[in-house]
Amino acid sequence: MKRIDWNTLTEAERTAALARPAQARADSLRRGVEQIIATVRAEGDAALRELSARYDHCALDAIEVNDAEFAAAEARLAPELKAAIREAAARIEAFHRAAAPQPVGVNTAVGVRVERVLRPIHRVGLYVPAGTAPLPSTALMLGVPAHIAGCREVVLCSPARADGHCDDAVLFTARTVGVHRVFKLGGAQAIAAMAYGTESVPRCDKLFGPGNAWVTEAKLQVSGDPDGAAIDMPAGPSEVLVIADADANPVFVAADLLSQAEHGPDSQVILVSPSAALLDTVAAEVDRQCAELPRGAIAEQALAQSRLIQVQSLTQAVQVSNRYAPEHLILQVNGARDLLDGVESAGSVFVGAWTPESVGDYCSGSNHVLPTYGYARSYSGVSVASYQKQITVQELDPNGLRAIGPCTATLAAAEQLEAHRRAVTVRLEALGTRL
Amino acid sequence: MKRIDWNTLTEAERTAALARPAQARADSLRRGVEQIIATVRAEGDAALRELSARYDHCALDAIEVNDAEFAAAEARLAPELKAAIREAAARIEAFHRAAAPQPVGVNTAVGVRVERVLRPIHRVGLYVPAGTAPLPSTALMLGVPAHIAGCREVVLCSPARADGHCDDAVLFTARTVGVHRVFKLGGAQAIAAMAYGTESVPRCDKLFGPGNAWVTEAKLQVSGDPDGAAIDMPAGPSEVLVIADADANPVFVAADLLSQAEHGPDSQVILVSPSAALLDTVAAEVDRQCAELPRGAIAEQALAQSRLIQVQSLTQAVQVSNRYAPEHLILQVNGARDLLDGVESAGSVFVGAWTPESVGDYCSGSNHVLPTYGYARSYSGVSVASYQKQITVQELDPNGLRAIGPCTATLAAAEQLEAHRRAVTVRLEALGTRL
Ligand SMILES: [Zn+2]
Ligand SMILES: [Zn+2]
Repeated sequence: MKRIDWNTLTEAERTAALARPAQARADSLRRGVEQIIATVRAEGDAALRELSARYDHCALDAIEVNDAEFAAAEARLAPELKAAIREAAARIEAFHRAAAPQPVGVNTAVGVRVERVLRPIHRVGLYVPAGTAPLPSTALMLGVPAHIAGCREVVLCSPARADGHCDDAVLFTARTVGVHRVFKLGGAQAIAAMAYGTESVPRCDKLFGPGNAWVTEAKLQVSGDPDGAAIDMPAGPSEVLVIADADANPVFVAADLLSQAEHGPDSQVILVSPSAALLDTVAAEVDRQCAELPRGAIAEQALAQSRLIQVQSLTQAVQVSNRYAPEHLILQVNGARDLLDGVESAGSVFVGAWTPESVGDYCSGSNHVLPTYGYARSYSGVSVASYQKQITVQELDPNGLRAIGPCTATLAAAEQLEAHRRAVTVRLEALGTRL
Repeated sequence: MKRIDWNTLTEAERTAALARPAQARADSLRRGVEQIIATVRAEGDAALRELSARYDHCALDAIEVNDAEFAAAEARLAPELKAAIREAAARIEAFHRAAAPQPVGVNTAVGVRVERVLRPIHRVGLYVPAGTAPLPSTALMLGVPAHIAGCREVVLCSPARADGHCDDAVLFTARTVGVHRVFKLGGAQAIAAMAYGTESVPRCDKLFGPGNAWVTEAKLQVSGDPDGAAIDMPAGPSEVLVIADADANPVFVAADLLSQAEHGPDSQVILVSPSAALLDTVAAEVDRQCAELPRGAIAEQALAQSRLIQVQSLTQAVQVSNRYAPEHLILQVNGARDLLDGVESAGSVFVGAWTPESVGDYCSGSNHVLPTYGYARSYSGVSVASYQKQITVQELDPNGLRAIGPCTATLAAAEQLEAHRRAVTVRLEALGTRL
């Protein structure tokens, strides 16, 4: 882990110290994805079967998961895991319901009613990757808010294994959280199928979820096409920034850093502390714990890029964090909550010694689909609002038009939009009023 | 205006009847904008001066509007217009404050506190075009929610006239709604300056506002660059869909259609009614009113593309509207509010005979920056939330970790993320608990 003393750095060195790896959008990847999308649009299901054979090494008969497969998955799954999935779903639902947008209505003048109503996005497409291990938690995080929002059709794609089946835990989770249809599709072809539709896969209005470089590039391409689909947010490698003070438990801090590092070699891990001693102890503890991990080799690659940053105060630590805008921010300091007001940019914050980041990944109730790569400066994590449209509504009665008609007419005249002005005056004249 | 009988159309003909003009992203435009962005990034203010001379035909000395210019603009402006701007700002503020997201906090288990806190996007950039006429209403709609959100720095760009000054009404509005800095910049160069920063223009985290094809293409390009800036939403030509019944006042309906048509030759105008007689009367009334309009020639071009659609019922009219997903939806029918529940996709809805769309453009209180081009299927209009990040926060006490630690550990094990599991178990062990 690279050791940095923040207060000896120039401004340019500070920027470099917090830089993320460049995300080159390779031309070859871009063209490869363009071709997959074009093929799926032109050839539909036939293309999906061929691409699944080529990339997922599975021969798909039906592309959609059927009831027998759902039932078999549920029957095979360990009762303890099923209980954990149900328990997590319940807490995620509790928080997301509490944080869901509410309808609003106010009178902005006598006779002028202005409201905001909520409508689900009709059909949404969720993508659940199947990497080295299945990811039922992604199905939880994408499916629960879609269900609360009331989306009419919730579609989920996840790649099949070579045996032609999706992961049992993902299928059970999909059914548990109310996903309507699951398709055995992965990669750019899954994104293309949901964005444009095929004979089997319905066309979706908005796509959600993480994925590899192909999935990310495909989401970017379909979101730039007016005939494509909207997406949740831009993607980047996962990351954590931990602020710890001299009293922090180095075993806890090291465990949190490692739980980020094990996600993948491109994971970003940063520890910021005013205590040189804590940085030393944590570095040693990370080495000790890492040696015991099954994914230790992956974590080591991520740790090679990681940074231990010494600052002069907790206030400065928060400044560093805001500048980095981490996906996950862990506050392992005395009086951790006092730092919260100063946090400007982060995806999700974990407060105090008893709040490991992994509870947020699974079942505290918050969403784990969060902005990475500095996008936390302008984006928020997935929530019920991500699955809804907020529509404004206004209704004037004659007194309302009398009240705000003159203001409208004055502004329309200033903008030289005479028809806008007349849409008011013809009505006022019908009411026997002249401007 | 093109007359269509919905129930005689095939499915393909229905799709064609509601099609918007193709938005070809011309290669020449794309390359031209790429070049402008590259030039602004390389040469900063010097590039801005040169591009302003070339495209806005003005010689810029200082790029930023100074206090003397603000004062002169305010002094020149008609008192009636200043009053209307202040009045509109107050109502827009009233509605946007009422509809602003609120902090949320729940306990999802004993000892597990989960919250959502709100933070302003630090620096935002607003774009106010200067077309055939000044657009102070755009400054209102973009500036008021930025102020309510609490953005630390609100930057506004609007092109200067040939005399080197921005429009008086735009400058007065900017000051009225709390914009911090205004720059005399237009076109793709304004977007590039706000996305990447120059010596004079600060780099912004998110960009808002409408614009011509160059502005739209520039927003698309900077939003696809991780080093660029987020944007409010994709753009398209403005549009209205009016649902009217046999009892609707044809003078009002015609005035509303024309107030959309006068925006520009590419404006989309659709009238849907179960009454053939109403469609006939409105068509004649549109011709009569259009002849009197200063922008009648523009409106006529838009009307050439417009559609009068006869349906068999109001229920079917709402189905047609949902399929089109209009930016503006006007309900001019008896019991208009009863149709509202059926409305699935629209930017903003205008209910009843006394609610012309122009009140929403200016001062009912709702925002007029809305999704067009079918984006209302998945996007919402600009609101306070567009200027904020929603950050989730979780805090567990020891009992909280005892409560949800086992569920976390089970799910982490299922996903083969052992370090995630250990971040829980090392803490439980410190509490004297074993899984
Ligand atoms: Zn994790
Ligand atoms: Zn208008």
